[in-house]
Amino acid sequence: MSYEVKSLNEECGIFGVWGHPDAARVTYFGLHSLQHRGQEGAGIVSNDGGKLYGYRELGLLSEVFKDDRQLAQLKGNAAIGHVRYATAGNGSVDNIQPFLFKFYDCSVGLAHNGNLTNACSLRTQLEREGAIFHSNSDTEILMHLIRKSKKDTWLNQLKDALNQVKGGFAYILMREDCMIAALDANGFRPLAIGKMKNGAYVVASETCALEVSGAAFVRDVQPGEIIIINDEGITIEHFTKETQHAICSMEYVYFARPDSNIAGVNVHTARKNMGRILATEAPVNADMVIGVPNSSLSAASGYAEASGIPYELGLVKNQYVARTFIQPTQELREQGVRMKLSAVRGVVAGKKVIMVDDSIVRGTTSRRIVDLLKEAGAKEVHVRIASPPLKYPCFYGIDIQTRKELIAANHSVEEIRQVIGADSLSYLSEEGLIDAIGLDFDAPYGGLCMAYFNGDYPTPLYDYEEKYQASLKEQTSFF
Amino acid sequence: MSYEVKSLNEECGIFGVWGHPDAARVTYFGLHSLQHRGQEGAGIVSNDGGKLYGYRELGLLSEVFKDDRQLAQLKGNAAIGHVRYATAGNGSVDNIQPFLFKFYDCSVGLAHNGNLTNACSLRTQLEREGAIFHSNSDTEILMHLIRKSKKDTWLNQLKDALNQVKGGFAYILMREDCMIAALDANGFRPLAIGKMKNGAYVVASETCALEVSGAAFVRDVQPGEIIIINDEGITIEHFTKETQHAICSMEYVYFARPDSNIAGVNVHTARKNMGRILATEAPVNADMVIGVPNSSLSAASGYAEASGIPYELGLVKNQYVARTFIQPTQELREQGVRMKLSAVRGVVAGKKVIMVDDSIVRGTTSRRIVDLLKEAGAKEVHVRIASPPLKYPCFYGIDIQTRKELIAANHSVEEIRQVIGADSLSYLSEEGLIDAIGLDFDAPYGGLCMAYFNGDYPTPLYDYEEKYQASLKEQTSFF
Amino acid sequence: MSYEVKSLNEECGIFGVWGHPDAARVTYFGLHSLQHRGQEGAGIVSNDGGKLYGYRELGLLSEVFKDDRQLAQLKGNAAIGHVRYATAGNGSVDNIQPFLFKFYDCSVGLAHNGNLTNACSLRTQLEREGAIFHSNSDTEILMHLIRKSKKDTWLNQLKDALNQVKGGFAYILMREDCMIAALDANGFRPLAIGKMKNGAYVVASETCALEVSGAAFVRDVQPGEIIIINDEGITIEHFTKETQHAICSMEYVYFARPDSNIAGVNVHTARKNMGRILATEAPVNADMVIGVPNSSLSAASGYAEASGIPYELGLVKNQYVARTFIQPTQELREQGVRMKLSAVRGVVAGKKVIMVDDSIVRGTTSRRIVDLLKEAGAKEVHVRIASPPLKYPCFYGIDIQTRKELIAANHSVEEIRQVIGADSLSYLSEEGLIDAIGLDFDAPYGGLCMAYFNGDYPTPLYDYEEKYQASLKEQTSFF
Amino acid sequence: MSYEVKSLNEECGIFGVWGHPDAARVTYFGLHSLQHRGQEGAGIVSNDGGKLYGYRELGLLSEVFKDDRQLAQLKGNAAIGHVRYATAGNGSVDNIQPFLFKFYDCSVGLAHNGNLTNACSLRTQLEREGAIFHSNSDTEILMHLIRKSKKDTWLNQLKDALNQVKGGFAYILMREDCMIAALDANGFRPLAIGKMKNGAYVVASETCALEVSGAAFVRDVQPGEIIIINDEGITIEHFTKETQHAICSMEYVYFARPDSNIAGVNVHTARKNMGRILATEAPVNADMVIGVPNSSLSAASGYAEASGIPYELGLVKNQYVARTFIQPTQELREQGVRMKLSAVRGVVAGKKVIMVDDSIVRGTTSRRIVDLLKEAGAKEVHVRIASPPLKYPCFYGIDIQTRKELIAANHSVEEIRQVIGADSLSYLSEEGLIDAIGLDFDAPYGGLCMAYFNGDYPTPLYDYEEKYQASLKEQTSFF
Repeated sequence: MSYEVKSLNEECGIFGVWGHPDAARVTYFGLHSLQHRGQEGAGIVSNDGGKLYGYRELGLLSEVFKDDRQLAQLKGNAAIGHVRYATAGNGSVDNIQPFLFKFYDCSVGLAHNGNLTNACSLRTQLEREGAIFHSNSDTEILMHLIRKSKKDTWLNQLKDALNQVKGGFAYILMREDCMIAALDANGFRPLAIGKMKNGAYVVASETCALEVSGAAFVRDVQPGEIIIINDEGITIEHFTKETQHAICSMEYVYFARPDSNIAGVNVHTARKNMGRILATEAPVNADMVIGVPNSSLSAASGYAEASGIPYELGLVKNQYVARTFIQPTQELREQGVRMKLSAVRGVVAGKKVIMVDDSIVRGTTSRRIVDLLKEAGAKEVHVRIASPPLKYPCFYGIDIQTRKELIAANHSVEEIRQVIGADSLSYLSEEGLIDAIGLDFDAPYGGLCMAYFNGDYPTPLYDYEEKYQASLKEQTSFF
Repeated sequence: MSYEVKSLNEECGIFGVWGHPDAARVTYFGLHSLQHRGQEGAGIVSNDGGKLYGYRELGLLSEVFKDDRQLAQLKGNAAIGHVRYATAGNGSVDNIQPFLFKFYDCSVGLAHNGNLTNACSLRTQLEREGAIFHSNSDTEILMHLIRKSKKDTWLNQLKDALNQVKGGFAYILMREDCMIAALDANGFRPLAIGKMKNGAYVVASETCALEVSGAAFVRDVQPGEIIIINDEGITIEHFTKETQHAICSMEYVYFARPDSNIAGVNVHTARKNMGRILATEAPVNADMVIGVPNSSLSAASGYAEASGIPYELGLVKNQYVARTFIQPTQELREQGVRMKLSAVRGVVAGKKVIMVDDSIVRGTTSRRIVDLLKEAGAKEVHVRIASPPLKYPCFYGIDIQTRKELIAANHSVEEIRQVIGADSLSYLSEEGLIDAIGLDFDAPYGGLCMAYFNGDYPTPLYDYEEKYQASLKEQTSFF
Repeated sequence: MSYEVKSLNEECGIFGVWGHPDAARVTYFGLHSLQHRGQEGAGIVSNDGGKLYGYRELGLLSEVFKDDRQLAQLKGNAAIGHVRYATAGNGSVDNIQPFLFKFYDCSVGLAHNGNLTNACSLRTQLEREGAIFHSNSDTEILMHLIRKSKKDTWLNQLKDALNQVKGGFAYILMREDCMIAALDANGFRPLAIGKMKNGAYVVASETCALEVSGAAFVRDVQPGEIIIINDEGITIEHFTKETQHAICSMEYVYFARPDSNIAGVNVHTARKNMGRILATEAPVNADMVIGVPNSSLSAASGYAEASGIPYELGLVKNQYVARTFIQPTQELREQGVRMKLSAVRGVVAGKKVIMVDDSIVRGTTSRRIVDLLKEAGAKEVHVRIASPPLKYPCFYGIDIQTRKELIAANHSVEEIRQVIGADSLSYLSEEGLIDAIGLDFDAPYGGLCMAYFNGDYPTPLYDYEEKYQASLKEQTSFF
Repeated sequence: MSYEVKSLNEECGIFGVWGHPDAARVTYFGLHSLQHRGQEGAGIVSNDGGKLYGYRELGLLSEVFKDDRQLAQLKGNAAIGHVRYATAGNGSVDNIQPFLFKFYDCSVGLAHNGNLTNACSLRTQLEREGAIFHSNSDTEILMHLIRKSKKDTWLNQLKDALNQVKGGFAYILMREDCMIAALDANGFRPLAIGKMKNGAYVVASETCALEVSGAAFVRDVQPGEIIIINDEGITIEHFTKETQHAICSMEYVYFARPDSNIAGVNVHTARKNMGRILATEAPVNADMVIGVPNSSLSAASGYAEASGIPYELGLVKNQYVARTFIQPTQELREQGVRMKLSAVRGVVAGKKVIMVDDSIVRGTTSRRIVDLLKEAGAKEVHVRIASPPLKYPCFYGIDIQTRKELIAANHSVEEIRQVIGADSLSYLSEEGLIDAIGLDFDAPYGGLCMAYFNGDYPTPLYDYEEKYQASLKEQTSFF
């Protein structure tokens, strides 16, 4: 079901292009295919022969760029763009990226996907030295570090700054004379390079944005790399060589679009494998397999194939978004839930149903879907989750920073089953997930970050260490 | 694949409720689940103890009812609503329904789904007698006929009027003292009655709107019926007994939501059957079956099941709507198409693909999807259409009124195959479609209207006869 | 002082042009200078060689025509326009004019300024015969009467219709082949004809709209006339010869712009004369004369000149409109009043002030202004009203239809003085007003309607007679 | 006439209140009465017991605070606000004030009226040290200087910063624990303190904003002062004692509202004096005196009084703002001008007219008004300007920074007369202006800044010196 309910939010999507006469428009297309990574706001900074233009606003991309006028002002043959994820409150345009900084000696556009683990310390330290921040975002920090750096060239200043920020980050910067992409030392967030037919280079959070731009995939940005793109082509630099892959496994499980490839692995295929392995690990006798649309359809079809149980359309998602405010009385609130998702009575009535979902956060949504299916007449509902239990927060760019929000942090699988009202409940094993994705980097788990499942964080937690330790002691009960 | 591209437009969706303290809100929920039947505009007329309130506007339901203020003004415990389909141009709020008529002696709200075949003659005749129309819609005609009728009671005036209008119509009227539903003598358009737990009655174009309202299905409105709902309950009247079922087969094929039932047949199940029968009628050796999202997923899974060929996610639909205006240069237009639909390279590359779609109108969209798949590396693309070739226009409520728009009207299957660039192409047979749906009314085709496929119109065409005859002689070539 | 507070609302302003390549734009300019006659909504209907286009919306002209797109769609070299006055509630676009009627045999645009006294009877009769109305406006009635007429030509049908409607009306109609202006038999509302340098003819509610269009004044439309304008020029017809001038005296006192001429009399000059005569009729010893901006400035300067007492700027009107909703607490409501009008402490402190206003409706506003002046230190405030006491409602186009709203209907001048807290209060006499305007038509009061002051209505009241008689018996006290 | 045409723009208006339960609303009222000082954007920062909230947006106050929701979020019993003047382009919300800075150790709101003369040097120096600016405004500089200061207390840091910025400035700052007002050493811009009945303190650019808030005038902020307001009351500090009054004379001539007092002198009275003295200095035989609305009405009435020539309403200003974009063809552009201002033909035709205006910038507007009057039949038009010729730019807060825009910088009075087509033209003398205002501070010109008229700048010009010297050599001709 929808991630608003699930409260599993990606931090952002970023995109950049260098060398296309219609750069802002290409960026619009690219951002459109990354919209699933962020719905709070969007923006584009373009570069017209050294002059930078910016536009950003709260809302979906189609609301921000309501008509052609905004795009028309973003002149130039290079541009970077950003979509920002939706949070409750704090809806200030000040936080919408790309940021556009204008100095007496240069201008810089900056877009960021990820989360810094030492942002709070760095910001306090910078403010003590007189720095003034204009947003709540940790993205500004990089710019301050660059401007404070005593190094000789802008590239060395950038490297200096990148070595001070910790955690998960994929940056795209626009300078008057070049576009730059940089990825943290663990490569938590995906970042891919493509090339258009006219020779323009494209950088994007996901390869689906290359496809929509008509760009051919070139390579992934590697951990610790700085990619410099200008009219001469691409140059590869490194701000650090101490790198080790720890790609966010939740990108495969939930965030990324199924048509994207990350580290060479297709997301749909990985999900189908998760379903297949789940069918082997947690079989159940039933009449049909149904997936929770849209993110679990691949896993569900994998489960169906491996189990030989027919795959059916037992749940339908309404493609139109309703105003959430229109949910007043208690009686109607129930009906509000049904506006997003409907169970197909004609399909599930009287049947034993295997409901495949990608993950469980709070459990609230799962319970509602089980309810929907039972109200529609399902005789049994067996829930199968195509990833291991989410037990630990993420500090690298997913918006779960406390264990309070995670039902599995404090409850056994049997307790969760009772909470959601399922007839049985099983999760995919950690090994199953690792096998399904099948990376083989020379790193733990083949190069995946599995911290949400097992607390094995690939880096020190810096500013979050204390919060995390406190979180381990919490025993919140959910219902 | 979106119907905007397909240019197969439903005329509308209608909804009504009597006996709920929050009637306008229930109607909002109901219309939300009917939004797929019309996106041009929406409106609600409520009834507060005899005083009628109305609000209507251009746009999606969530744009029309932007915040709680509009709904709050629609007081009362009864309401009717309408969603209107999107056409190019003619975007005047004057055409948005329900219409609200205020007379010196009464007020009436009116919502209509369908198309009258004698609208032009009736309107001209009425204008000659001094009538003034305020919209382009044929819906106003009924009101004029009612007010002109010399019959003694309002019910007899209504019957008088209903016997003068010809073609396809499902009406819901709101009077101060009752709500009325009426269906044409052939039952072209679906209309179902439900009952909420508190005893309120609900009428809706599709049963999915009953589900979202928490209403239990009671029965379908039958051809020729007038359903009168007031505080006493339901009364059934007839304006004619000369009826014969001719339910629009395209509702099953394309328009209706898969979780709706029409005449007791679940739409998803009917589509899955279409896929199954299609697999038998037109088998092909391939690596995978893929459906064109979202309307063809049921048929594709049926094809996969019957053929034993794996069902794969080879096409991904972007859930976010892009501004269509942002498609300027020729080069970028191609990319604009990709914003709606993406082929999953990791899945289809190097494979023989069976692409299942529900129907082909112009062929343009099919060609683009075949292109997408081939660009993504598909070795072969075999197109299978889960309905017979569309050869004839519809005059009962679907927006295809000329054969010029229908590629199959003038081209053989082999010609179409070449046009869309497929390696093979097959359609479901008429018998296959009839069997898949499986109605058994005492009427031709079991009670289906098959006119789009074979020109066998269940009624005289009245004002359209001449246009239709001319259309038969056209030999438009498409490309 | 704003008329919102005063609740003296004009019904509308109308404008038309025939023969200008940029007709809609000329109409926009014309309506802009008539905006003071109506702020609820605005619209334009243009005529492009026989095809009529319309656009109308709620709001000020600058809100309705937000950018060039709406005007650009209104093609053609002829156009009519309308601004509608602001009422609380009933804010439906259905009532915004010009109305655009499309028939099988022709199209007609219709704009109306005035109020019909037999609208209710006519409407009921028409509905009984089957007519359907789409607005609350009485304007639609004329169109129904035209279409019902059995006369042979459209002109005779129009004459037939015009002879059935009673009360005050100035109409402009747009037909495919001509533009038509018509004025009631008493000429209650002003309507002037002008000619542009390129030969285009212009018709407008006030001559200030001719000036802004660069048109030279030709003549006033006379009572009972039908003016037909087409490419051949102007033709003058009459629907009745039984006419007698009764021009609304409140147009001179309050409604019309000071730069307009009505029946050859400049409005500013008339107002200055009212002030001069008032100074003679009601002298007072004081330090200064101040006018209530903006409508009373002319009268105040006349008073100052005739009395020899200096004219001072003692009240300043804020040129920016504030949101009225922002007036929450009792304490702040007082301050809200000051947002519109400020007393100039530096001018009035310690002084005896003569405050000249054009009229008093409820008295509320006068009391507030007297308060403002006293708070600012004025030693004495002598109120002088440049028109006689408003005692009777108007049924010909001003929005006062009950005596309850008129303080002078039920209170003596001394009572009113106490209510508004003035040190003295005097009104202009009826003779003074008639002399100040100085018309000399062969009709009572020289051709003015004085009914608001003395109940001498120039016509039967038809549907309003009963309401009026009841109103005479009401003894509402105001405070 | 309107300053848009005149291109004489004030920089801003500022307002603050401490100690009122509805502080944001009081600030809204205050800003409303300062709207004439800035129309590009508006904002408010409120203080709720130490937590600061901010809202700002482009547009008029009534557009920024469209409904009660924005104000409702601005909780607290203290608030500051800002209205910003309209410039072409550069319409970014980033420049709208008050700025709200959030630091790890405190939050600060900042509003500024004026212009710094060393902004460019300070900003470059700060950026060299690593500072990052987020707006084009020079207002941010103060905050950077405060945060960089090595002084021990925030008050000493503020003094340190205030001694580094040069030019014209009136600041209001909001801290968690107090509100602060500060004025430059010359007091270029007005800033007044008032006290509400409940004891709340108010600070505002003009006293008219005290009146609308119901606050009694306490005193003007004096040059070099820092006013600290908290729950204990008012404390007065100084950042410098080297002060000398040089109050902007154009505030009296044009900018300020007539009901405001500056340095104890009422603006209307000063203007009336300017008119009186002008009548003595430049008499002319004529039939009437007319003022250009709205800013010149006081001066015109003064001229009339002193000369004994009747004051008439010869020009009418349309109170409704038209969209300026709607001015397409050359022919219609002329008419566009008439939408703002109309000559009253009935008044001026055949007469010798004295047209009093407050000032001439480019001359374009004056020429158009003379044209209007002549077209309306005026026999002679004698232009009298109630201030000396504008010859030099202003660097302290008025938006004229080049002599190119000033016709009097390069043309004699006779040349200007010819340009504007007047029959005669005279300006008020410098002595006349000084006498009319009548300040008696121990400073040149009694404490007025007369630089626009005579180039006698009261301070060094710093960053503008070079630009100014170049400007002196320009000999731009206007027509």
